[in-house]
Amino acid sequence: MQIRKLVVVGVGLIGGSCALALRAAGKVDRVVGVGRGRGNLEVALQRGIIDVAHALDDDWAAELASADVVLVAAPLAQYRALFAAIAPAIGTTTVVTDAGSSKQDVVAAARAAFGDRLSRFVPAHPIAGSEQSGAVAAVPTLFAGRSVIITPLAETAPEALACVTALWQSCGAAVTTMSSAEHDRIVAAVSHLPHVLAFVLVSELAARANGSELLERAGSGFRDFTRIAASSAEMWRDIALANRDALLAEIDRYGDALRNLRRLIEANDGAGLEDLFARAATARVWLDAAPEGDGG
Amino acid sequence: MQIRKLVVVGVGLIGGSCALALRAAGKVDRVVGVGRGRGNLEVALQRGIIDVAHALDDDWAAELASADVVLVAAPLAQYRALFAAIAPAIGTTTVVTDAGSSKQDVVAAARAAFGDRLSRFVPAHPIAGSEQSGAVAAVPTLFAGRSVIITPLAETAPEALACVTALWQSCGAAVTTMSSAEHDRIVAAVSHLPHVLAFVLVSELAARANGSELLERAGSGFRDFTRIAASSAEMWRDIALANRDALLAEIDRYGDALRNLRRLIEANDGAGLEDLFARAATARVWLDAAPEGDGG
Repeated sequence: MQIRKLVVVGVGLIGGSCALALRAAGKVDRVVGVGRGRGNLEVALQRGIIDVAHALDDDWAAELASADVVLVAAPLAQYRALFAAIAPAIGTTTVVTDAGSSKQDVVAAARAAFGDRLSRFVPAHPIAGSEQSGAVAAVPTLFAGRSVIITPLAETAPEALACVTALWQSCGAAVTTMSSAEHDRIVAAVSHLPHVLAFVLVSELAARANGSELLERAGSGFRDFTRIAASSAEMWRDIALANRDALLAEIDRYGDALRNLRRLIEANDGAGLEDLFARAATARVWLDAAPEGDGG
Repeated sequence: MQIRKLVVVGVGLIGGSCALALRAAGKVDRVVGVGRGRGNLEVALQRGIIDVAHALDDDWAAELASADVVLVAAPLAQYRALFAAIAPAIGTTTVVTDAGSSKQDVVAAARAAFGDRLSRFVPAHPIAGSEQSGAVAAVPTLFAGRSVIITPLAETAPEALACVTALWQSCGAAVTTMSSAEHDRIVAAVSHLPHVLAFVLVSELAARANGSELLERAGSGFRDFTRIAASSAEMWRDIALANRDALLAEIDRYGDALRNLRRLIEANDGAGLEDLFARAATARVWLDAAPEGDGG
């Protein structure tokens, strides 16, 4: 695979890092960046992430006919409008893919926009990220050893799937495929739920009258929560709504587990508490055996 | 302050690190270690943390009459029995202090055991720790720049308070005083609640039939949770019960906040979600200005 022209729509942490990784691997010749923020695009140009920049309200559709790959790495709420702009303008061999953290919602948006060009779209989710954002935070190693989940449609062209698989493998990631529904259930449990739990904790404390005083006493456990909850509020707003059903199911499940903990404490059930706390150590053992990922 | 003889009851991460810090500062001449596990005491001897070791079921009370300071750094459930053993055996100038993560419960145990020697007891909580435990994990720098909260009683002798204050300052910590009740409310919010939330999340996922498969997809956010939930199950069982009332109040408050989040997602309230998520960033700013602590 050699990408002569890559169009990255949303040159943030993910889109920028993907471009840098492909450049480092010698797999891309020319990168066109499209984005909302002029300042961010300027950073991307200066850092050599992109060769050309277009603001989102410019006429950038002309770039698409000759693009080998279009990577949409913008906040999820923008997907419908972006797909509507992209779908009619792509060339016959252009492959369109995305980096969104939910997939059923993205697939529905793609179905609505791509029509008979749906075979060119490959839904994907690189499981990587950090609490930082923007082109300034992009690094070529972000996906090294990480996992990328691709959720192909029945309509997806085999060569388009092969192209996106090779793209992420060139970035150093391990690619697996599954259905959009399975993807959404899994990430709701291991990524979206933990993030919203952290947001709720930190946000609730920050809203208290004595919040700053409380936080002066915060330990490293709480500091981990604030790091998680320092992620982009806009991005997580979009994720929470895009993966709404799976996330609501996980929140309810967590609420039940929290009520169970409450009962154990109220009943002074030391043995039950120790069992519950000790079971968490199992997960640590599993994780130590698994590759690094991220909840972004 | 020069401690000729320090008795550390519970030579784990906290007790062992305190001994090492005092040694590094040249503030202690001789350290006697008392503990449950022979293997851990052997590690403490080999690492030069303690000079002499006594198993908990040996006759170690004879060491107490000539001790300048006795530091109780064992799991909270052992405090009543330990105080009952220590109180009758101390010398007239011996100062007894502790490192427990709850304080009202510890003070009640001390009141029950110390009688007219209560003036010698100084309740304290070094806000430091990690998910590791045992003498093997002890380091002399654990308390450098961290916070220690002392919750003196009306009965506490001024020179005993001054001694424990100097002890922790010698370890590099910043010492503040407050009431036991205030301490317990604060740590319930910024330490005990975050830890039990992490335990509940990780434990619930680990108990699922597809737990190991889910965790293969876990991102860095979830990994932070497993790190927090890798702390000692016994220690956290004791903390949850010792600070029961304040922790239950925090769990209820968190449950309300989680239900509020659920309503926002269910109602597709993007603006409300973004407000909630963005508010968490405030806490990050406050924390960046505050000294490092830990929830141990």
